[in-house]
Amino acid sequence: MTKILTFLFLLFLIFGCKKYDNSNNNIDEMHLQSNKKAEDMPKFAIVIHGGAGTILKENMTDSLELAYKNTLQEAVKTGHEILKRGGSALEAVTKTINIMEDSPLFNAGKGAVFTHEETNELDASIMDGATLNAGAVAGVTHIKNPINLAYEVMVNSDHVILAGKGAEEFAQLSGFELVDPSYFYTENRFQSLQKIKDKEKTQLDHDGKTAYTDSFIKNSKFGTVGCVALDKNGNLAAGTSTGGMTNKRWNRIGDAPIIGAGTYANNATCGVSSTGWGEYFIRAMVAHDISAMMEYKDITLQEAAYEVIQKKVPALGGDGGIVAIDKEGNIAMEFNTAGMYRAYINTEGELFIGIYKD
Amino acid sequence: MTKILTFLFLLFLIFGCKKYDNSNNNIDEMHLQSNKKAEDMPKFAIVIHGGAGTILKENMTDSLELAYKNTLQEAVKTGHEILKRGGSALEAVTKTINIMEDSPLFNAGKGAVFTHEETNELDASIMDGATLNAGAVAGVTHIKNPINLAYEVMVNSDHVILAGKGAEEFAQLSGFELVDPSYFYTENRFQSLQKIKDKEKTQLDHDGKTAYTDSFIKNSKFGTVGCVALDKNGNLAAGTSTGGMTNKRWNRIGDAPIIGAGTYANNATCGVSSTGWGEYFIRAMVAHDISAMMEYKDITLQEAAYEVIQKKVPALGGDGGIVAIDKEGNIAMEFNTAGMYRAYINTEGELFIGIYKD
Repeated sequence: MTKILTFLFLLFLIFGCKKYDNSNNNIDEMHLQSNKKAEDMPKFAIVIHGGAGTILKENMTDSLELAYKNTLQEAVKTGHEILKRGGSALEAVTKTINIMEDSPLFNAGKGAVFTHEETNELDASIMDGATLNAGAVAGVTHIKNPINLAYEVMVNSDHVILAGKGAEEFAQLSGFELVDPSYFYTENRFQSLQKIKDKEKTQLDHDGKTAYTDSFIKNSKFGTVGCVALDKNGNLAAGTSTGGMTNKRWNRIGDAPIIGAGTYANNATCGVSSTGWGEYFIRAMVAHDISAMMEYKDITLQEAAYEVIQKKVPALGGDGGIVAIDKEGNIAMEFNTAGMYRAYINTEGELFIGIYKD
Repeated sequence: MTKILTFLFLLFLIFGCKKYDNSNNNIDEMHLQSNKKAEDMPKFAIVIHGGAGTILKENMTDSLELAYKNTLQEAVKTGHEILKRGGSALEAVTKTINIMEDSPLFNAGKGAVFTHEETNELDASIMDGATLNAGAVAGVTHIKNPINLAYEVMVNSDHVILAGKGAEEFAQLSGFELVDPSYFYTENRFQSLQKIKDKEKTQLDHDGKTAYTDSFIKNSKFGTVGCVALDKNGNLAAGTSTGGMTNKRWNRIGDAPIIGAGTYANNATCGVSSTGWGEYFIRAMVAHDISAMMEYKDITLQEAAYEVIQKKVPALGGDGGIVAIDKEGNIAMEFNTAGMYRAYINTEGELFIGIYKD
């Protein structure tokens, strides 16, 4: 009996201690879980740009600055509301870009710049970080919201890029209304083209060379709009829409409709939308290179964005910027120009709107 | 005097020994230099593809197989001769691709497949690994050798990608002769289109769906040509030229004219030319991803090519292959299809020609 009692006492000691240990563990676990819950709260965030370039305060009126800020705010809040109610990153990206496409302030949709032939040729692309699916359109002239057509190409065709008349035939088959090209006429953009043509003519008369390196003309390359969003399901999406560069010729395609250059999204790394001198952004594979550095070098989004925008692109002779979000909701807005129209609402719900450097 | 003699004797010993040491060093140095010379001999190499797909021996006649092998050999030897006489990788790539563009056997130039509208729309791109400069054309219909126009865009325009009519206007300004679209008519390709249209019609009648997933139609996507070369100056170049996919619609742009997807070259890493289901090659950023893995993960060309072609592209649902050369002249030819028309002459001067797997 004594043996049995001793055995039971030993058992009690063992299990008692174990229980005690367990309860300690439980407290730790609860503590961890409570931390984990805070960490696991579905994070969502959104960032946009309205183009990078020589944007200087001395060239800006107060009312124009206010107009830009108001539209940036309207756009970023539109996407944020979608994310807040559980909508997808893809929906947030398209609806946010639509606000900027419908504004004459940005070089996309309504405010698209004019080509050399005095037409408006629009490009756009979108990418889904969850599936790596992507869609793009290049050189469309009758599409009010090219980002919506890029989305349609992504989800309802077997293709990634459709161009020109073919893209518009696909648009019609998909129920898109074609707008008359006159929709894209804005006096401001038309006068910009005339100024450049005059200047080009003067320069041609002067030294027989085309005026591509002229800084005034160089700045007319910019103004693309873009958006990157992270939704509550952890999905990233990125989109970019543009009218390209003023006075562009020969059906030039810039980086905006090029997956990996103008737009890239991958849930494993980040989403990126570019704006800048498209040719250099294609050659540097800007959007994909930022993602590849994060994936293969295991550096942060901010480090990768800095490396590409402040070192690699300038080394080639190009300029511009990007906005990006990583899978944790960290935001990067990196540019090597005097300014970039930009805004975000981060995972803390904080709104930021900026135009100039710092 | 004895002191002086002793001093001189010591000097002799010291310098004698030193001389002896030096001569030993010299022998080592000479040996090293001779080794170094062998290592520093300017290496050059070239690799080409004529498309990947369901290429099976049982579907091939002996005479057709011979015709393919002869043209592959002629093409790869053309480029190799250029490299041997000290020509640039860019020259080797363009002239080699010209041979394949001028042959009706490959889906590029003369042998381009037909679009749904029974036209031939050609795409091409080229990249210079020394400067990261690049040029591309998409959807041209009057250009005999699209790779030459891509080269012209790279070196004589401020642009990277020009499309359709605009690209041809640029071609004319640059002195290119435009060919009549009838140049691209080949009975074989035209019948392929008719077969697909019939099959598509049957399938549409049958289940109301388009027939994109049909394996016969799937195979008609392939046949792009491409070339990568390393020249004696250590410069890499890559180029790709294609007629796209049979029955393509809506001015679809595939991966061939997309820098980073169909073509990429960077002296720091490698040159790559892709062939396969273009949409998946764009989404996977095949050519740039191989380069990025080498640069950031410090793995070999072969390891990176395997990872992308055997794992990443199939994971998305795509298929195809690549040819590539790294900065040391190592060659990779990786594909996940039944066959890929391919050939190389490596740094040892060894010729290889292949069609089927193994």
